[in-house]
Amino acid sequence: MPFQEAQTGLMAVLGDRLSRSKSDLDQHGRSETHFPLTPPEAVAYPETTAEVAAILQTCAAARCPVVGWGAGTSLEGHGLAVQGGIAVDFSRMDRVLEIRPEDMVAVVQPGVTREALNHELRATGLFFPVDPGANATLGGMAATRASGTTAVRYGTMAENVLALEVVLASGAVIRTGSGARKASNGYDLTRLLIGSEGTLGLITELTLKLQGQPEAVAAATCAFPAMGDAVDCVIATIQAGLPMARIEFVDGPTVAAVNAYAGADFPVMPHLLVEFHGSQSSVAADARFFGELVSDMNGQAFRWAEKAEDRNALWQMRHHAYWAILASRKGARAIVTDMCVPISRLAEAVEITAQDIAAAGLEGPILGHVGDGNFHAILLIDPDDAQEKARAKHIADTMAERALAFGGTITGEHGVGMGKLHMMAAEHGPAWGVMADLKAALDPLNILNPGKVVRRANSG
Amino acid sequence: MPFQEAQTGLMAVLGDRLSRSKSDLDQHGRSETHFPLTPPEAVAYPETTAEVAAILQTCAAARCPVVGWGAGTSLEGHGLAVQGGIAVDFSRMDRVLEIRPEDMVAVVQPGVTREALNHELRATGLFFPVDPGANATLGGMAATRASGTTAVRYGTMAENVLALEVVLASGAVIRTGSGARKASNGYDLTRLLIGSEGTLGLITELTLKLQGQPEAVAAATCAFPAMGDAVDCVIATIQAGLPMARIEFVDGPTVAAVNAYAGADFPVMPHLLVEFHGSQSSVAADARFFGELVSDMNGQAFRWAEKAEDRNALWQMRHHAYWAILASRKGARAIVTDMCVPISRLAEAVEITAQDIAAAGLEGPILGHVGDGNFHAILLIDPDDAQEKARAKHIADTMAERALAFGGTITGEHGVGMGKLHMMAAEHGPAWGVMADLKAALDPLNILNPGKVVRRANSG
Repeated sequence: MPFQEAQTGLMAVLGDRLSRSKSDLDQHGRSETHFPLTPPEAVAYPETTAEVAAILQTCAAARCPVVGWGAGTSLEGHGLAVQGGIAVDFSRMDRVLEIRPEDMVAVVQPGVTREALNHELRATGLFFPVDPGANATLGGMAATRASGTTAVRYGTMAENVLALEVVLASGAVIRTGSGARKASNGYDLTRLLIGSEGTLGLITELTLKLQGQPEAVAAATCAFPAMGDAVDCVIATIQAGLPMARIEFVDGPTVAAVNAYAGADFPVMPHLLVEFHGSQSSVAADARFFGELVSDMNGQAFRWAEKAEDRNALWQMRHHAYWAILASRKGARAIVTDMCVPISRLAEAVEITAQDIAAAGLEGPILGHVGDGNFHAILLIDPDDAQEKARAKHIADTMAERALAFGGTITGEHGVGMGKLHMMAAEHGPAWGVMADLKAALDPLNILNPGKVVRRANSG
Repeated sequence: MPFQEAQTGLMAVLGDRLSRSKSDLDQHGRSETHFPLTPPEAVAYPETTAEVAAILQTCAAARCPVVGWGAGTSLEGHGLAVQGGIAVDFSRMDRVLEIRPEDMVAVVQPGVTREALNHELRATGLFFPVDPGANATLGGMAATRASGTTAVRYGTMAENVLALEVVLASGAVIRTGSGARKASNGYDLTRLLIGSEGTLGLITELTLKLQGQPEAVAAATCAFPAMGDAVDCVIATIQAGLPMARIEFVDGPTVAAVNAYAGADFPVMPHLLVEFHGSQSSVAADARFFGELVSDMNGQAFRWAEKAEDRNALWQMRHHAYWAILASRKGARAIVTDMCVPISRLAEAVEITAQDIAAAGLEGPILGHVGDGNFHAILLIDPDDAQEKARAKHIADTMAERALAFGGTITGEHGVGMGKLHMMAAEHGPAWGVMADLKAALDPLNILNPGKVVRRANSG
């Protein structure tokens, strides 16, 4: 039993920061969505990189699986210890180590959440832009290549991490990247580790790019008779080079759920929600120009706002969407799935998906990041109805298959985890084998989050 | 002899497109800079991915080294066959395969040059923004992670390639990435291959992100009493969120060389050269705002222009710089080196470098991409003076060491090639060993551009 073999060594490293309490194990065996409780055998709470290195040395010797844990907000069960072993919870490595305003850089430990970092940055005039919705840890966001509503302007975690400190499966500590904004200095290990879901190393420090807080923010919303018109409007907006900070869409059923939940009266039609960042004059000009495009594309109910409270009122549709949808059916839980296609195929993909969901007798409002071609269906299920759950999972698979048929990807931002592993061969073909080769090279004993991203025998 | 073993097989694949003429070999053994002539044993001119795969199968069986070749414009000798073997010249794979304006994407073969692509895109309202100066091939630019003057706005090749088709050392063909703008679908093989300098695979197709041609372009130049003032101005500009498309600097000696070469009369002081892309109103507003920052930071001689001929006159300093510097000393050649630091250290790095160059009795004007903290010294040498060449190479090493001491990288955009390999251990520490592990996993026989990026025994 690998964990039992590692236990004494781990206790020597961590003392009472190696927990085996049932509540701790359960808390680290749960996911935000529908995966069954999968508790690890222990939870480690390291406080330093040296402790993480010692944990990995100990676990490598015992061939005990090691799974990183941030805030537990991932949607595909990335952090579940499917082959046993320990969870390494980074909540005690939560310090902002350095802020360098001139370089627009922050150095943080992996357990810092994005909200905590932005709170710390308040007085600097800077902010960290990646916003996946949940208040995830920055280590977890890097490990899962998180993105969200602002990716259309600021990129995903892949574009916003300059450097990492990482503990490898052997316990060796490496640094990737540097404080330079760009480099052509060999293989891009930073980008290889970002999105590797804890299977190649554990991130113990991140150097992040920051952005200047915009002088002004403007928001706009508008409704369209059909998704196709909304997408045409977005394509025109992007081609015109309008620098949108966010551009989201919600479908009619999402609007209906928000109206019921928040007592609002938005027209029950597809909507676009846009945000512009810039100077007072540039955001006003951008919003005006966007308004013209909207009316060219059959849009209606165009509203825009610069004041924070008015912006929040406009954006309540997006902010409330998930909870409004959940509340629209009593006792429901959700299977939240994710796909990403070239934007020219987006309208078609959303429309077919909505038809599929209706044909399966399910409710599943659709919303997403239209500028990236990325959208989500919130498939409502009765958690006690195995048949309904199976139908919803089938819809999720159909969506992933369609993403591939349309030249896109099975997941734009939610990641592989447990929910998309069975689709990896279809997406990558022989390149999936290359991923397994890389995994074998960096983690020959297969102790780092085994059973995720690649499929290979546990050589332990 | 590996090549002799491979020769018959290669001729069966390529016929007379396997060349052994002396002029061909010499042409593929030369670099733009100071490296000695290092011809390969043959030059292959494949026309299809299947031929590239057959070349690699044949060479793997014979353990014959294979080195990719684009336009031969790299500055660090990336394409030189230092362990013999064949050059694979992609000039016959030069078709633009597809342009999808709605998705702002082009699919190209690796031998297409960036100018050829932009020529093809003229009528679409789109362009490909990465501009390293030379008219390099897009395959070569991806393989070396090229960037250049527009990276501050549009990113490097790492941010502008969505997907690749790649032939691995075994001859297997894989596809990485997709038509989706973002993905969290496993290891980022696209980014691992970009910048791998032909050591992990040969790129046979690229899917590139395009940008909308800006409605308006404005350029501005200004002079500063010292580099520190110029850099402070850039920091203020970036923090204010002004969206510069290019922001370059040249030092006083560069200005003097340009004045002499082009009959201009710019003040012999450090200059900033800026370009803004956007709408008519936004570029005018941006240029005005930049002018205010310039005067706050002791800048002078501020000029700006929107018309193309006026812009070109302003930018002649940058466009002519390399040739003006070469012409400033009769018969000179140049060692062009490259480093990249956090912007807060840039002024200091440039000033110390200028002092080092002067103390070594060399001429070496300095210019670069100030928004990225990336700069170049054009170290002039008499090609027949071995001592002077040695002094210049020593300066280049000193610059690389200083880049590391300042928290930066030994190369921001020129790459490792032959010129920076000896600095890789100092830059990466144990992470360099991880690169060697990845290389061994993907190219176990070490046939792909052996002797570059990583250092390991040729297992063949």
